[in-house]
Amino acid sequence: MKIRDVVLTPVAFADPPLLNSAGVHEPWALRTIVEVHTDEGISGLGETYGDQEHLDRLRAVAPHLVGLDVFAGNAMHARVAAALGGATGHDMHGLTGQITAAGTVDRVFSPFEVACLDIRGKALGRPVCDLLGGAVRDAVPYSAYLFYKWAGHPGAEPDTWGEALGPDGIVAQARAMVERYGFGSIKLKGGVFSPEQEIEAIHALRDAFPNHPLRLDPNAAWTVETSVKVAEALDGVLEYLEDPTPTIEGMAEVARRTPMPLATNMCVVAFEHLPPAVARNAVQVVLSDHHYWGGLHRSHELAAICRTFGIGLSMHSNSHLGISLAAMTHLAAATPNLDYACDTHYPWNRADDVVRPGALTFTGGAVPVPTTPGLGVELDRDTLARLAENYRTCGVRTRDDTGYMRTVDPSYARKRPRW
Amino acid sequence: MKIRDVVLTPVAFADPPLLNSAGVHEPWALRTIVEVHTDEGISGLGETYGDQEHLDRLRAVAPHLVGLDVFAGNAMHARVAAALGGATGHDMHGLTGQITAAGTVDRVFSPFEVACLDIRGKALGRPVCDLLGGAVRDAVPYSAYLFYKWAGHPGAEPDTWGEALGPDGIVAQARAMVERYGFGSIKLKGGVFSPEQEIEAIHALRDAFPNHPLRLDPNAAWTVETSVKVAEALDGVLEYLEDPTPTIEGMAEVARRTPMPLATNMCVVAFEHLPPAVARNAVQVVLSDHHYWGGLHRSHELAAICRTFGIGLSMHSNSHLGISLAAMTHLAAATPNLDYACDTHYPWNRADDVVRPGALTFTGGAVPVPTTPGLGVELDRDTLARLAENYRTCGVRTRDDTGYMRTVDPSYARKRPRW
Repeated sequence: MKIRDVVLTPVAFADPPLLNSAGVHEPWALRTIVEVHTDEGISGLGETYGDQEHLDRLRAVAPHLVGLDVFAGNAMHARVAAALGGATGHDMHGLTGQITAAGTVDRVFSPFEVACLDIRGKALGRPVCDLLGGAVRDAVPYSAYLFYKWAGHPGAEPDTWGEALGPDGIVAQARAMVERYGFGSIKLKGGVFSPEQEIEAIHALRDAFPNHPLRLDPNAAWTVETSVKVAEALDGVLEYLEDPTPTIEGMAEVARRTPMPLATNMCVVAFEHLPPAVARNAVQVVLSDHHYWGGLHRSHELAAICRTFGIGLSMHSNSHLGISLAAMTHLAAATPNLDYACDTHYPWNRADDVVRPGALTFTGGAVPVPTTPGLGVELDRDTLARLAENYRTCGVRTRDDTGYMRTVDPSYARKRPRW
Repeated sequence: MKIRDVVLTPVAFADPPLLNSAGVHEPWALRTIVEVHTDEGISGLGETYGDQEHLDRLRAVAPHLVGLDVFAGNAMHARVAAALGGATGHDMHGLTGQITAAGTVDRVFSPFEVACLDIRGKALGRPVCDLLGGAVRDAVPYSAYLFYKWAGHPGAEPDTWGEALGPDGIVAQARAMVERYGFGSIKLKGGVFSPEQEIEAIHALRDAFPNHPLRLDPNAAWTVETSVKVAEALDGVLEYLEDPTPTIEGMAEVARRTPMPLATNMCVVAFEHLPPAVARNAVQVVLSDHHYWGGLHRSHELAAICRTFGIGLSMHSNSHLGISLAAMTHLAAATPNLDYACDTHYPWNRADDVVRPGALTFTGGAVPVPTTPGLGVELDRDTLARLAENYRTCGVRTRDDTGYMRTVDPSYARKRPRW
């Protein structure tokens, strides 16, 4: 069964003004919807970043995939690498900066691999998780992903979530999230206010949700000294502290000085980062993400490495739609050593989902694993067309949280670490 | 598609008197042929060790697999672990001694996983390599596996291979192997004579085969000091030196003192051995073997770990039949970073193969990857019945190279290291 055609559709969907250590989410978030069509009439879906540099690479690579067998994952990875010719990229999401050549290949390869797994599942009449060793859980738990946020975008009406600029707002947001979705774990995106204020917010969450595991992610906003102080202050309160400080070396020093488990999706984001992180015992939890770890099979390889080297495994998210949520859910279902509830931005963006309603639901904070063939989701063509039109007209081509913040506060400077 | 029945058939087949550091191969080698039957009428094959302890475990586990879906590899692994209840085993092949609980699970799980992949391939109309990401090579290169050997078993006629007890005999054996099979790499099983004599044999092979990569495997017969001396003597002559000395610590010391790449299938034989081996840079090449690394998917995980940590990958063999050769070939075909020609004992045992002729051939030292559905091999029921009868009557129940040597030389003592 060979690839006949690849269709790439960049889309833009409404995103609330969520704050982080690099600035604030713009009104539009970007993704690329990937459709792979075969010569036997079966098609598959993938979803990935929509930033210009990445989209250019997807477009450059796609013609090289035509004619490939949908089972030829190894050959496809090699073709992607050859087509990219050693190019390096940039992370557009304010996290990791420069991406290595191998990491760039894995990012570009990922949505095509997912689409081929979707096709293979459909051809076989099996859900994608069955192609990954089978589900070890019927539903995948996700965490409530809290953000400090403005009431609405400047000049626009407040959104339905409302303002959250201190402990009260954060607790109210958590209550809404938990009430609507049933989440059993809570993550706060920090790095926005002073560490003292964010510690206060965590304590307020602990008081309001005495039994929910809690996480805090300041996106490397802190020095090693600050990180150690926060880790001490929140010892026994957090299940893990995520990326308190930049670089493997910085994380290793924090890890040496505190018993707090440290998680990362910033200093270990490609296979070549694992040896130095292991050698220094820099991180105790890796947040996997099939969008940059090279698809579902390679994410399984990451899981095997974590299992082997005694590293915990959780899952990272960017703003995403339902194709990604389906892929994340199948992957997580078939990963025995996924030790924590997964992150997801989905509640913030689900109103604009490109997949037809009904396939993905949250029950008790978890998404039941689709049991229909492939990923188990189908495109809603009307919504896709609307989101593609958004893309054409919105003007955003590359995520820039810092630049958008500067339109509101010209004195705002990106600084990492800030405290 | 659910497992309806599992049939285990222990078999014995003729084995020549091949010498190694633990003694000599007995006249009969043992394996277990695994047949998995499904409720949809498709069946699959696996092959594994035939030693009593292992056979008992296979028999204890098999009933627990009935009813499992053939795609449920994760659940099957968990069921095998539960059925074994933390039991530890022993390696019966004179290599690694005690096997950990996790390693025991992986050994018992392996043939059932392979049989399920055979079934899945047949159901899909695809070769097993396509279920592993697709072949990256059309044929898998194997190495000529040379042994010091007697002309025949005591009291029996000489076999067709003849005696090889010094450089001339080894070179003659190599010529026969290369002529018949076209092998492009050569491995000598050492640890039988003094290191000086074996160095001499390697030099004789180098003279006779100036362009064939050469390997020497004394099965941990040497001290660290001796290992360093041999490594220096054969620097630039061997592509790698395999298990010169026991333990990760011993290998690490040799590795520190010599530039010779060190390979292992003795000190790194389960996932828990990888962290200490990586931390000490003890080995530069791991010989994978799906029979003890937990099947084909877990062997892929091992490959990913080797790729990530900059460790070379080769493939180990015990005495085996065609089901194993087929599985090894599919696995190797779909493993991009398999850096060396694989080991195989197959030329020594192929006369008694349980699979129907024609599916597996050697062309230019390589086995063309079967392109028919599943593993691509079928049982020859007549041969299976004959080998099962061998098993019932031969009296061998557990491999004992040392005990057999003592029947010839009562003064023989197993000693590791010996030199």
